[in-house]
Amino acid sequence: MKDYIKIPMDIEKRSFQIIGDEMGTHKFNEEELKIIKRVIHTTADFEYKDLVYIREGAIAEAQNILKKGTSIYTDTNMALSGINKKALNDLGCRVICYVSEPEVAKIAVERGITRSMAAVEKAVEDGVEFFVFGNAPTALFKLKELILEGKSKAKFIVGTPIGFVGAAESKEEIEKLDMPMITVRGRKGGSTVAAAIVNALMYMLVER
Amino acid sequence: MKDYIKIPMDIEKRSFQIIGDEMGTHKFNEEELKIIKRVIHTTADFEYKDLVYIREGAIAEAQNILKKGTSIYTDTNMALSGINKKALNDLGCRVICYVSEPEVAKIAVERGITRSMAAVEKAVEDGVEFFVFGNAPTALFKLKELILEGKSKAKFIVGTPIGFVGAAESKEEIEKLDMPMITVRGRKGGSTVAAAIVNALMYMLVER
Repeated sequence: MKDYIKIPMDIEKRSFQIIGDEMGTHKFNEEELKIIKRVIHTTADFEYKDLVYIREGAIAEAQNILKKGTSIYTDTNMALSGINKKALNDLGCRVICYVSEPEVAKIAVERGITRSMAAVEKAVEDGVEFFVFGNAPTALFKLKELILEGKSKAKFIVGTPIGFVGAAESKEEIEKLDMPMITVRGRKGGSTVAAAIVNALMYMLVER
Repeated sequence: MKDYIKIPMDIEKRSFQIIGDEMGTHKFNEEELKIIKRVIHTTADFEYKDLVYIREGAIAEAQNILKKGTSIYTDTNMALSGINKKALNDLGCRVICYVSEPEVAKIAVERGITRSMAAVEKAVEDGVEFFVFGNAPTALFKLKELILEGKSKAKFIVGTPIGFVGAAESKEEIEKLDMPMITVRGRKGGSTVAAAIVNALMYMLVER
C-alpha cells in the first residue's frame, strides 16, 4: 500500500490546488472563488462552477449576520451535521433544524403538508434571519410565501435543494425575490453543498 | 406560484420514474437498480450509473448482516445523519460514528494520524461488521490494513470517499480485497451517496 497524506489540512490544501488548476478560467472574485472551490471540493463535480449563483452583495450580508452571532436554520439534520461546529462556536452562532421534532410531524400530518414546510413555519415564527435549504423544495416555496406575506425576518438564504421534482423550480421561484442569496441552479445541489457554502462563508471570518 | 407536490412519498415516486425514463439502457438487476436509482436521486447526477460498483453477492451479504440487527459504523456524522432512522429501528440496527469523540481526537493528535483513522481503529476493536465510508480515504486505507492484519471482523463495506487527494486510490485499494462491498469509482461519492446506498439496502427489507 502506498504511503498517504494523513494530515487533514494538508489534504484540503492540496485538494484546493488541484481544483484551481483544473477549473480553468473564470470571472469570480476572491471571495466568490472560495465558495465555488469549496462546493467543488465537496462534490468532486466541476459542473458546479457554472451552477452556483451568488447574488451581488450576498457574501457581505451573510457575513454581517454571521458576525453578530445568529441562529442558522437548516432544512435537514444532514445539512446541520455538515456545518463546522468549531467555526460556528467561534462566531457565537448555532444551527437549528426542526424537521425531526414530533410537534412538527404532528402539524404536518394534520394539515397535509410536508414536515419541511411545517418546520420552516416554526423557524419563521422564531424570527430566523439565516436560512439554509439543501434538500426540501417545499420548504423553499413555503419560505417565499411567508416572505411575500411579510411574516419572515429572513435576510439571507442558501437555496440548494436537489432532485427531480420541484427542486429547480423552487430555486427559480426564490431567485425572483430581491434579497441576498446563494443558490445552485437546476437539479443539482444537496445538503453537502448547502453546508459547504455556509462553511466557506464562515471560514473567511474565523481562523482554522 | 404554481401548485407543488407536498407529499414526500409522491415526490420520491415521481423522481424515481423520471430517473428510470432518463437513465437509458443498463445491465443492472432489480436490486442493483434500486441502489443505482437511489444514488442518482440523491445526487441528481446520472454519471453515477457508470461509477457505482456493486460486487457480486454484496447486496445479499449486506442484507444478511442488516437482518440480524447490526451496528453500522460511519466515518462521518453527516453519513450517520443521512441513514434512515425508522428503517434502522425496524431492523433492530443502529449507527455509530466515533470521529467527534474527544478520546479519538486525543489519540489522533498523539500519534499524528487523522481522527478518521483513530475512529476506525476503535470500531474494529468493537467488532463492527458493517462499515460505511463516505468521506475519509485515510479511514478506508486504515481498515484495509487492519483487515490484512486479521484484526477486523468487517463483512461488508460501503466505500464512497469523495475528493481529489486519496479518494480514488482508497477505493482502488479496498477493491483489491476479496469481500462484499459497494464502492463509487473515481473522485465522486460522498456522505450523501454512502447514506443513500445504506438506505436502499434497508428499504428492500422493511416497509416504508
